[in-house]
Amino acid sequence: MDITLIDVALGRKKAETLLAGGRVVNVFTGEIEEKDVLLHGGRVAAVGDFGSADAETVVDLDGAYLLPGLIDAHVHIESSHMTPASFGRAVLEKGTTTVIADPHEIANVAGAAGIDFMAADAQNAPMDIFYMVPSSVPATDKETAGAVLDSAATRELFRRHPEFLGLGEVMNVPGVLGGDGETAAKMKAAGERPLDGHFPLGGGRELAAFTAAGISSDHESVSAAEGAEKLANGMTLLIREGSSARNLETLLPAVSDHSHSRCCFCADDISASDILTHGDMLNCLKKAVAFGMDAVRAVEMATINPARHYGLKRRGAIAPGYLADLVAVGDLVDFEIRNVWKNGVLYRREETRGEERRFGAFRLSGEPFRFPLPREGETRAAVIRAFPGQIITEKAVYPVDSLAKQGVSRLYVAERYGKNGNVGYGLIEGFGLTSGAIASSVAHDSHNLLILANDDDEAMFAAETVAAMGGGMAVVKNGRVLAEMALPVAGLMSDEDVETLAEKERRLNGSVSELGISMAAPFMTLSFMALPVVAKLKLTDRGLFDVEQFDFTPLYF
Amino acid sequence: MDITLIDVALGRKKAETLLAGGRVVNVFTGEIEEKDVLLHGGRVAAVGDFGSADAETVVDLDGAYLLPGLIDAHVHIESSHMTPASFGRAVLEKGTTTVIADPHEIANVAGAAGIDFMAADAQNAPMDIFYMVPSSVPATDKETAGAVLDSAATRELFRRHPEFLGLGEVMNVPGVLGGDGETAAKMKAAGERPLDGHFPLGGGRELAAFTAAGISSDHESVSAAEGAEKLANGMTLLIREGSSARNLETLLPAVSDHSHSRCCFCADDISASDILTHGDMLNCLKKAVAFGMDAVRAVEMATINPARHYGLKRRGAIAPGYLADLVAVGDLVDFEIRNVWKNGVLYRREETRGEERRFGAFRLSGEPFRFPLPREGETRAAVIRAFPGQIITEKAVYPVDSLAKQGVSRLYVAERYGKNGNVGYGLIEGFGLTSGAIASSVAHDSHNLLILANDDDEAMFAAETVAAMGGGMAVVKNGRVLAEMALPVAGLMSDEDVETLAEKERRLNGSVSELGISMAAPFMTLSFMALPVVAKLKLTDRGLFDVEQFDFTPLYF
Repeated sequence: MDITLIDVALGRKKAETLLAGGRVVNVFTGEIEEKDVLLHGGRVAAVGDFGSADAETVVDLDGAYLLPGLIDAHVHIESSHMTPASFGRAVLEKGTTTVIADPHEIANVAGAAGIDFMAADAQNAPMDIFYMVPSSVPATDKETAGAVLDSAATRELFRRHPEFLGLGEVMNVPGVLGGDGETAAKMKAAGERPLDGHFPLGGGRELAAFTAAGISSDHESVSAAEGAEKLANGMTLLIREGSSARNLETLLPAVSDHSHSRCCFCADDISASDILTHGDMLNCLKKAVAFGMDAVRAVEMATINPARHYGLKRRGAIAPGYLADLVAVGDLVDFEIRNVWKNGVLYRREETRGEERRFGAFRLSGEPFRFPLPREGETRAAVIRAFPGQIITEKAVYPVDSLAKQGVSRLYVAERYGKNGNVGYGLIEGFGLTSGAIASSVAHDSHNLLILANDDDEAMFAAETVAAMGGGMAVVKNGRVLAEMALPVAGLMSDEDVETLAEKERRLNGSVSELGISMAAPFMTLSFMALPVVAKLKLTDRGLFDVEQFDFTPLYF
Repeated sequence: MDITLIDVALGRKKAETLLAGGRVVNVFTGEIEEKDVLLHGGRVAAVGDFGSADAETVVDLDGAYLLPGLIDAHVHIESSHMTPASFGRAVLEKGTTTVIADPHEIANVAGAAGIDFMAADAQNAPMDIFYMVPSSVPATDKETAGAVLDSAATRELFRRHPEFLGLGEVMNVPGVLGGDGETAAKMKAAGERPLDGHFPLGGGRELAAFTAAGISSDHESVSAAEGAEKLANGMTLLIREGSSARNLETLLPAVSDHSHSRCCFCADDISASDILTHGDMLNCLKKAVAFGMDAVRAVEMATINPARHYGLKRRGAIAPGYLADLVAVGDLVDFEIRNVWKNGVLYRREETRGEERRFGAFRLSGEPFRFPLPREGETRAAVIRAFPGQIITEKAVYPVDSLAKQGVSRLYVAERYGKNGNVGYGLIEGFGLTSGAIASSVAHDSHNLLILANDDDEAMFAAETVAAMGGGMAVVKNGRVLAEMALPVAGLMSDEDVETLAEKERRLNGSVSELGISMAAPFMTLSFMALPVVAKLKLTDRGLFDVEQFDFTPLYF
């Protein structure tokens, strides 16, 4: 009970700020009202009809719509390639005042130390970043990851970070359904906190079992029926609209008059350029309204609903006592941003740049790549068939003598933590690479070094280019670097500003045409080629992996 | 994570119980589906299409509608005159499997010891009783209460009962708005738990200030506009439909497609006979549907919504992992109860009677009553005007020589805790008493002994009759007891069963006609005549009290 706030609400004391002349979106009632808002001490004091005598400073909103600060229910900050501080500056300008982040990527690279870094750097962000403890580090034992977080480490993280909100997306569905002890112990470590899920397998009794285990959200639905079944089972439905997976349009029919308060938006994985161009949650609002959703309901899904699900008190609405996180937009169609207030203070960008922090070692073995050739009697090859913007792949089988004709390239996964120097070799189609190589240290989930090339020398040059930056992405050709983006923070992130990174992303994706690559955003697609929990054929540093068989499989046979 | 439940959900192990052939009401999606429900270990394992091979025991629901067990968001168990164990048996038969109770009445009589008794006796109830720590003991210093719970006592109660859900309805609105230190300290003692409010004063800046203070629910709204304003300010709206205050029909228009997930039903104060005849939450469902509300939405307001507001995890829905509290009803109009399951077990009444527990001393001073007469020069008298079923009163002023003609009776409030022997004397109209007396130890909030009579001797006999029972209610005439109900537990409750108490209520209310009383349910109305926080003219043991002036006022002048 804050007596000053009460005094301001009652008019016994002037508010710091009066936002006048706006149209206030009330997510509790669905009403849009021409009302004024008093802000004081970082909170909303009252919503009503007030005058200039009620505040020290009066801001005329000139008919703008005033929304609660937007909340992203689930995001991996690392996927933006920005550090938390840099990410925070970028999304706050787009109206996002709070995110619930799962530092799953850095945890796979650097373990608890990486998570501690994320927590510390979040303090440098101008908005609020809440974390979940990643549950799946590593997701499988089929690859060499930079770190392992077992149940003891999970408990220790909750002890060290009591402010962490819950357990991040539990991906080990077989572990849950099989009653795996380590998985159960991690879930237990979360206590009464929410357990996020990752359940891409449809529904039925498996879904019932997964929710019976206590997992209360999911962001993997790809059809409205699947979303509705998850809601029916008591899950909160996180509707994902990021840079790779885009499920918003498909899932909107699952949002009904009954279910809407348990539906949220999330970006999951979003690039710097998408944040810059479209916004993260703002993009969800625009699209939801474009697809016919009531604007206030859409706002609710990006504000109060995630706050409720994750137990964030007095956040996500414009109401007395609520955090004074607000966004003024020109209308409820384009949601053109006019101003953002965080903790009652108008946000103005600071042009300062953070210091460059190196984080996480990057050690290749130094051995040259030697892509294997078919041996006597091996006539066919297993080939990963990649699709633009898809994280799933198909398994193709070709005669070994037709590989060049089919446009098949080589894929390398080089262990980069200095643990064993493993290199996994695979064949892949769908990128259209004709010369040169691309390499990236962003390779879900273990983030070893991924290289796409047609010969070992180009592959090695690309690998060395990335390693020399301490991680990042590079496009090379004939021993020349065409474009690069250094990601020295754990090989995943940079603390450069969003414009700089977006420009580097643009150059990377632009220069790949010189390599014959026809696929849009090839680095994004490439980054999932080493993820052995998503079907069907993937490559880890330990070899070619058949996800459906959940075992390694030979390259040639 | 309960691996047995997972095994049952997956079909690897038989469930204890299969509820087959029912229509399952899903409060998440609003759907009503012909599905089966597997129960195991007190929880729902799965909802789907199952067969007799899936369970040890199959129950054929024969088309019944299956609802989650009902939840009352706010009730004072003491007002039913039943102990928690007895109350629990009564409401469970009517489908209520969980209540959030504020032991405000017994706290005013017996302080923390009374609350401890309520917590202990809740363990004897066959359903779940969650408590709030009462915030207003006493509500004012204008009367002698049996106990005081200051902020230190409040902190100690939260320490001793960490399972208590929050702070019970904060009635001291001036204390909140004025920043009273003790009120603030009690609110602080609740930590992050919900703070219930009691805000009968409309809206505007006072309401903003009250919610800015952190109070998040209210059950005092008497118009839809008032309810909507509370919702708009971020409060959860508790729609009350009890034995005295009935706001359901009035408030239903405040429940919209947007706001419904923040609306709940509550009984607040309900009699044994109303529970027996109509049910508590069942009555709300029936009425809401009769007034045109969608049935599933009504169910939601009596199940998942209060569970969400009070942070009761995995309760209030029929979904995997949720508590197996279920109610089978014949239809969604009359909601005729067929069966109730608590923790997965079909409830069957146990005809055993609890032992009679005396609780709380009952000590009158022994001095005879001496109703004051007007002195020289006093020509007018202030008279409480009571209305059937209303807790508010009006103040009438009559010439002292016309009191008999006006049908004015005497009202006595005798301090009953042996603290000071105070007797307050007042005049009251509206009951129609012509002879005899009625007396009751249920007298909000301090629960001193209230007596309505036309002369001191009848008043004293009625008082002695109640005192001899250790508390309760009595109707007497000419030195004879016409009807009585012993409430030996703190002078408020009995552990008799609901039928016995309802029959005693019936006899009490029936016999008053022999006294000329024409008011229906006079004991209910009487019980609020000593409540100095509700307008306008009331009587405490310290004298006649003008609530609007918030001061004592003379009887004659």
